[in-house]
Amino acid sequence: MDKILLGHGSGGKLMYELIKKYIAPIFELPSLMDSAIVSLNHSGKIAITTDSYTVSPIFFPGGDIGDLAINGTVNDLAVVGAVPLYLTVGFILEEGFPLSDFEKILSSISSSAKKAGVKIVAGDTKVVDKGKGDGIFINTSGIGVIPEGVELSPLKIEMGDKILISGSIGNHGIAVMSERNGFTFEPPVLSDTRALNGLIDQIMKEFTPFVKVMRDPTRGGLATTLKELALESLKDILIYESAIPLHDTVKGACELLGLDPLYVANEGIFVAIVKADVAEKILQLMKSHPFGEESAIIGEVTGKGGKVLLKTFIGGTRIVDMLPGEQLPRIC
Amino acid sequence: MDKILLGHGSGGKLMYELIKKYIAPIFELPSLMDSAIVSLNHSGKIAITTDSYTVSPIFFPGGDIGDLAINGTVNDLAVVGAVPLYLTVGFILEEGFPLSDFEKILSSISSSAKKAGVKIVAGDTKVVDKGKGDGIFINTSGIGVIPEGVELSPLKIEMGDKILISGSIGNHGIAVMSERNGFTFEPPVLSDTRALNGLIDQIMKEFTPFVKVMRDPTRGGLATTLKELALESLKDILIYESAIPLHDTVKGACELLGLDPLYVANEGIFVAIVKADVAEKILQLMKSHPFGEESAIIGEVTGKGGKVLLKTFIGGTRIVDMLPGEQLPRIC
Repeated sequence: MDKILLGHGSGGKLMYELIKKYIAPIFELPSLMDSAIVSLNHSGKIAITTDSYTVSPIFFPGGDIGDLAINGTVNDLAVVGAVPLYLTVGFILEEGFPLSDFEKILSSISSSAKKAGVKIVAGDTKVVDKGKGDGIFINTSGIGVIPEGVELSPLKIEMGDKILISGSIGNHGIAVMSERNGFTFEPPVLSDTRALNGLIDQIMKEFTPFVKVMRDPTRGGLATTLKELALESLKDILIYESAIPLHDTVKGACELLGLDPLYVANEGIFVAIVKADVAEKILQLMKSHPFGEESAIIGEVTGKGGKVLLKTFIGGTRIVDMLPGEQLPRIC
Repeated sequence: MDKILLGHGSGGKLMYELIKKYIAPIFELPSLMDSAIVSLNHSGKIAITTDSYTVSPIFFPGGDIGDLAINGTVNDLAVVGAVPLYLTVGFILEEGFPLSDFEKILSSISSSAKKAGVKIVAGDTKVVDKGKGDGIFINTSGIGVIPEGVELSPLKIEMGDKILISGSIGNHGIAVMSERNGFTFEPPVLSDTRALNGLIDQIMKEFTPFVKVMRDPTRGGLATTLKELALESLKDILIYESAIPLHDTVKGACELLGLDPLYVANEGIFVAIVKADVAEKILQLMKSHPFGEESAIIGEVTGKGGKVLLKTFIGGTRIVDMLPGEQLPRIC
């Protein structure tokens, strides 16, 4: 047996064996119970998040759907200031999906969770008939604890605050698009999928009172994330095109594909809006972390409103809106 | 616009509008942030669970995929003794899925959550291309708090303990199968989808020390659940066919479809293994609750081992194993 069968999702013996043989040994599942029971040792606030992953193709340069699912959920917790602790993983498998691919993905999940320092405590597996799914979809949900005193909010954004970014943009989206369309670039563009909780933890330990809000610019890219922050804070944000870290290959690929890198998905960077007078210090700390070497200050908060303005390379200014419709479907 | 478009999942303006217009008003989403932040006011243990729902068809007699997703996750928390509090909901929509169906399902989700007394705090929406999904899949994850002193485990099961069931078996599976195959029964068979936390809460308030373990016999049915409990406790369980509540229409439908009702999925009942001398009292309490009127004592723990034995109507005894392969795919 080397493929997923419908019976693997029917709750009977086949499913029990699939879980026992493939899933349980790799995850840190404490039991096969309906729910996992864990201790938080924390009486304050917690953060809860959920994400489904439908990326196509499921394997791409720099990662796969398994890494993505773990890192994405870890990052969603980390950017609200939470310390990610426990994750759940739900699989929707298509009948006929190769068990060898499933094993590879389980292994990515396991190693990403270990790297991020989170435990996978509950899982679920469903199988849909051939033609009613697309190999594998993964849902990851997670919880983390919010340390005392941490309260990030776009409402804290003030005039003069600086906009920091932790790395170069567009890598994930271009890596997936290149795999999907059979392009190769030299050097190859790799997805930036990685867990940001380590880097964010360092910032929060030292600079909590000065960090207003953080976000990870995934689907919709940097532009959409900044526009959301502008709308939620009713502040204008000005960014400098020349300051935004962007690899030449990604830039070239975007030109080739007719994409604007500002709207291309990222999976391993975050944006932080911080008080101006510590921005440089935070930047130095970020640059000293392996996942923040390309960090940069890319702009500032310039007034009331809700607009995002981009100062272009050639000196013009244009309004940046959200991604208007679909640019890159199934990118995560 | 009356159908889901790929752009609804791309993280841009269309998705933002979908969430604002359809999803946010119905759910109790505190914000559009990556993670929801909530207070638990509880420093003890918590329960975490996840489930994906791929039921086909999505609307069936007595419920739809929306009710099912909420009630199923609430029940998974309740049967481990947790008080369910917060749920997340992740949608995987297929391009072309009618928005009117999505609205109906959102409304079921909202009303089921209200009935169960849980809050939906985070959500996610992905769209896959036409032909790569099946209308709608839903993942629900949830957390609940475990009250001080509650510690259910199959390891607590002892010789003589009684097996209680809270309602009649097979209703959900047959309701879905009838809809899938275009059968109608007189009276119609309705899914038993409902939230069991209210009834379980009453039992736990009064009888915590006497309840060994609870489970909801969903996929794989009552037989699979009992076999799992027997294996985990290494105890033999004897059940009496004549004591198991089963509606005549469901029995007839099972005969017609060649199904064994012991393996047919349920979505609104649970099994409890309890100390013998309070079993009758717990039964009376269960019968007095609207969701437990059909409760019954269906068997007992008879020795060491790991087997489930069924005393049949005609007086024979047969070994009950897990559902061997697939019986009813995509039943939840």
